Amino acid sequence: MAKIGIIGSKGRMGNALVSAIEEAGQTVAGGVDKGDDLGALVAASDVLVDFSSPHAVEANLAACVAAQKPIVIGTTGLEERHHWLIDDAAQDIAVLQTGNTSLGVTMLAALVKKAASRLGSDWDIEIVEMHHRMKVDAPSGTAMLLGEAAAAGRHIDLASSSERGRDGITGARKEGAIGFASLRGGTVAGDHSVILAGNEESITLSHRAENRAIFARGAIKAALWLQGQKAGRYTMPEVLGL
Amino acid sequence: MAKIGIIGSKGRMGNALVSAIEEAGQTVAGGVDKGDDLGALVAASDVLVDFSSPHAVEANLAACVAAQKPIVIGTTGLEERHHWLIDDAAQDIAVLQTGNTSLGVTMLAALVKKAASRLGSDWDIEIVEMHHRMKVDAPSGTAMLLGEAAAAGRHIDLASSSERGRDGITGARKEGAIGFASLRGGTVAGDHSVILAGNEESITLSHRAENRAIFARGAIKAALWLQGQKAGRYTMPEVLGL
Amino acid sequence: MAKIGIIGSKGRMGNALVSAIEEAGQTVAGGVDKGDDLGALVAASDVLVDFSSPHAVEANLAACVAAQKPIVIGTTGLEERHHWLIDDAAQDIAVLQTGNTSLGVTMLAALVKKAASRLGSDWDIEIVEMHHRMKVDAPSGTAMLLGEAAAAGRHIDLASSSERGRDGITGARKEGAIGFASLRGGTVAGDHSVILAGNEESITLSHRAENRAIFARGAIKAALWLQGQKAGRYTMPEVLGL
Amino acid sequence: MAKIGIIGSKGRMGNALVSAIEEAGQTVAGGVDKGDDLGALVAASDVLVDFSSPHAVEANLAACVAAQKPIVIGTTGLEERHHWLIDDAAQDIAVLQTGNTSLGVTMLAALVKKAASRLGSDWDIEIVEMHHRMKVDAPSGTAMLLGEAAAAGRHIDLASSSERGRDGITGARKEGAIGFASLRGGTVAGDHSVILAGNEESITLSHRAENRAIFARGAIKAALWLQGQKAGRYTMPEVLGL
Repeated sequence: MAKIGIIGSKGRMGNALVSAIEEAGQTVAGGVDKGDDLGALVAASDVLVDFSSPHAVEANLAACVAAQKPIVIGTTGLEERHHWLIDDAAQDIAVLQTGNTSLGVTMLAALVKKAASRLGSDWDIEIVEMHHRMKVDAPSGTAMLLGEAAAAGRHIDLASSSERGRDGITGARKEGAIGFASLRGGTVAGDHSVILAGNEESITLSHRAENRAIFARGAIKAALWLQGQKAGRYTMPEVLGL
Repeated sequence: MAKIGIIGSKGRMGNALVSAIEEAGQTVAGGVDKGDDLGALVAASDVLVDFSSPHAVEANLAACVAAQKPIVIGTTGLEERHHWLIDDAAQDIAVLQTGNTSLGVTMLAALVKKAASRLGSDWDIEIVEMHHRMKVDAPSGTAMLLGEAAAAGRHIDLASSSERGRDGITGARKEGAIGFASLRGGTVAGDHSVILAGNEESITLSHRAENRAIFARGAIKAALWLQGQKAGRYTMPEVLGL
Repeated sequence: MAKIGIIGSKGRMGNALVSAIEEAGQTVAGGVDKGDDLGALVAASDVLVDFSSPHAVEANLAACVAAQKPIVIGTTGLEERHHWLIDDAAQDIAVLQTGNTSLGVTMLAALVKKAASRLGSDWDIEIVEMHHRMKVDAPSGTAMLLGEAAAAGRHIDLASSSERGRDGITGARKEGAIGFASLRGGTVAGDHSVILAGNEESITLSHRAENRAIFARGAIKAALWLQGQKAGRYTMPEVLGL
Repeated sequence: MAKIGIIGSKGRMGNALVSAIEEAGQTVAGGVDKGDDLGALVAASDVLVDFSSPHAVEANLAACVAAQKPIVIGTTGLEERHHWLIDDAAQDIAVLQTGNTSLGVTMLAALVKKAASRLGSDWDIEIVEMHHRMKVDAPSGTAMLLGEAAAAGRHIDLASSSERGRDGITGARKEGAIGFASLRGGTVAGDHSVILAGNEESITLSHRAENRAIFARGAIKAALWLQGQKAGRYTMPEVLGL
């Protein structure tokens, strides 16, 4: 039975993780939030699950490296420097970072990559997501993950191809661009659509999360899988054998 | 039989207007584009239909006022000063300005207003639209029209309530905000959705245009109706008796 | 504080009703299922909420009439004879029967009625719904409720205008028909869309329930409102003042 | 330059085929409808494109076999015996039969097959389509094609797994079933969605045709490709190299 520590234990996601750990028949090693004793939690855990905030990533990784414990990072809003920190830590411990821990989104990303690779650049790619009114960043980590899948299928660089936050006189769409749009409202757990819009026809590939339980379940599944891995950086498709 | 003049006669919308005039059994008085003789067209027309560009609105209104001819303005991307110019011109001639000339959108706006007025401010309003890859401005005129309908239903000011072009660390959604998002791609003639997202339930009110013919048909219907009106500023719901 | 009795207390809806009663600060008078002592529950309750099965409607109404207690009936799959029984009972007690107790659906039905009444019969009306894999009847009660709203807007009879379960060589769509289609799968709490499809444009009016809590909350809101009413048959729009 | 003969030349699809042949820089060999001289058309053509009716399939195949000419069959509503006839003819000539000739649908079917194969049978599969009010059969040929793709991904037999035309007391959804639903209205050229509904999350894979031009273009592309093939039965993915 694995002892799983929760970084970012307050709020809805923290509660969902506790339920998912119990549902999976494992043990909650404890939980910390800003100001709590992170070192003690890491020491008491076999594996950590982090849904806190980008600001905490550096300290969380350092604590896990010091104690040689694997960590699943599901925090969204990461910047390039956070990814460098993760790459560094992955020299010493097993780290799985993902913008989305659900099985359905992992599958969707694979389909998006395939469609993007087979349909020519005259099929414009747009990604639209909707989340609850409390979400503070845009686009969602999952939207970025889907954008990365599309960019990989097209063999292009996402950052330099993105059109985000369209407003005002934008000019015509750039060929090969990947567009992003973010909706916020209500209690929506997470809707994502990738639209491939061609000449007089279009394909839309969508995922809907009914609630946060699916993310917590997937994160715990990933944590249990990660326990057995050697140092390195891992992804959700590996967990699911896709 | 009415002689209808087309301002902005090249491109797809110009062609669609010619077809719609013929379909309605009326006469095409002619068409002008940038650099053509606007005065001659206005003189030869009973009523004008303008789908050119915001830059041309001032000259178009002046020519119509000088010749005492009514005008339908379907140009999108208008700014506040264009609306002042229209209000001025409407002292002398009949002017109908609208962000969308279709029957369906006019109906949708009425439904949006009703829903916004009856559902409390804990139902967040979001407006998302998709248009073809050549569209140069965002949000669409129709999206703004739907936003105005929602704001009217809520008795709030749209400009100060709008959240547009979300990107980056946006913070939580403001209570009472009306959000806008714009997608671009392919040959999409025009899709609009207004989402009212409440606690654990949501309502979505959508319109889809299959092609531009519906806008041209509605514009010609409006032009024929406008011919018989005295000076003033009119709207699509009046044309349709809504 | 009202004592609310639950008829059909097992299963997910029963649990959701208990939560909603507590959330509303009221008292659960108790719950019965097939074989339990209905009379005792009715005697102990100020008002009853019934989400059991069509077979039980007759006995439930009889018990409420005998004890002069009001009842909210949210059971779906009712047939014409059940509606006669309800009309009879409503001579003696207050009865509110509805295919859907959510605020959003009640609002949507009002919008559907308005759109159907204003758009001509060349706008074809289709209703499609999706529910979880365990649902045993089709179309859903809510789909029928939306169909009734559309038919009322058109001043037509729903039963004789319906096209249900299309399969095989159906022939062209009948003018003025209202079509129904039912999807089943996963754990979907309830999605409904009413499509008004015109010539080269269409309007879609949709509702999504994220979970069953909204139905339970609405049912309890209706029960509390019904307590104060005299004998008669009532509807959700009355509860909500629409 | 290929001479392409059109079987089923009247109506919208016939007109679209003529446009697509001209757009592709090829020659229209002529067109026939019920009662016309099929033999003369086949003799004058290098390859035939058939969008007529199931009743005509037998005669069309016989004429092509007699003249040793390849044929693309896009007619929908075929029954098992038509497929036997096609298999027979494919001993002698090249035949490509498909429920949908668009690039987008061909791509979508590949994605559906992949998703169905990787997501377990606790992800319920539903297929819903919408077409214009004049369509006489249900489900559409494309819906069946997508159903076949899903069934192939699951290694199950479509006919014995289908749930079609749900209406009334249906009982709970059967595990592993593939559901179909058909909407009809307006002038919709063709919308298809395949929903994979899991536990608390779902994936939807959709295609939208804005008009019939895409089907005509794809059919002509297939016809040109088929010219160079030896006797045998072919499919759209082969044309597109998927």
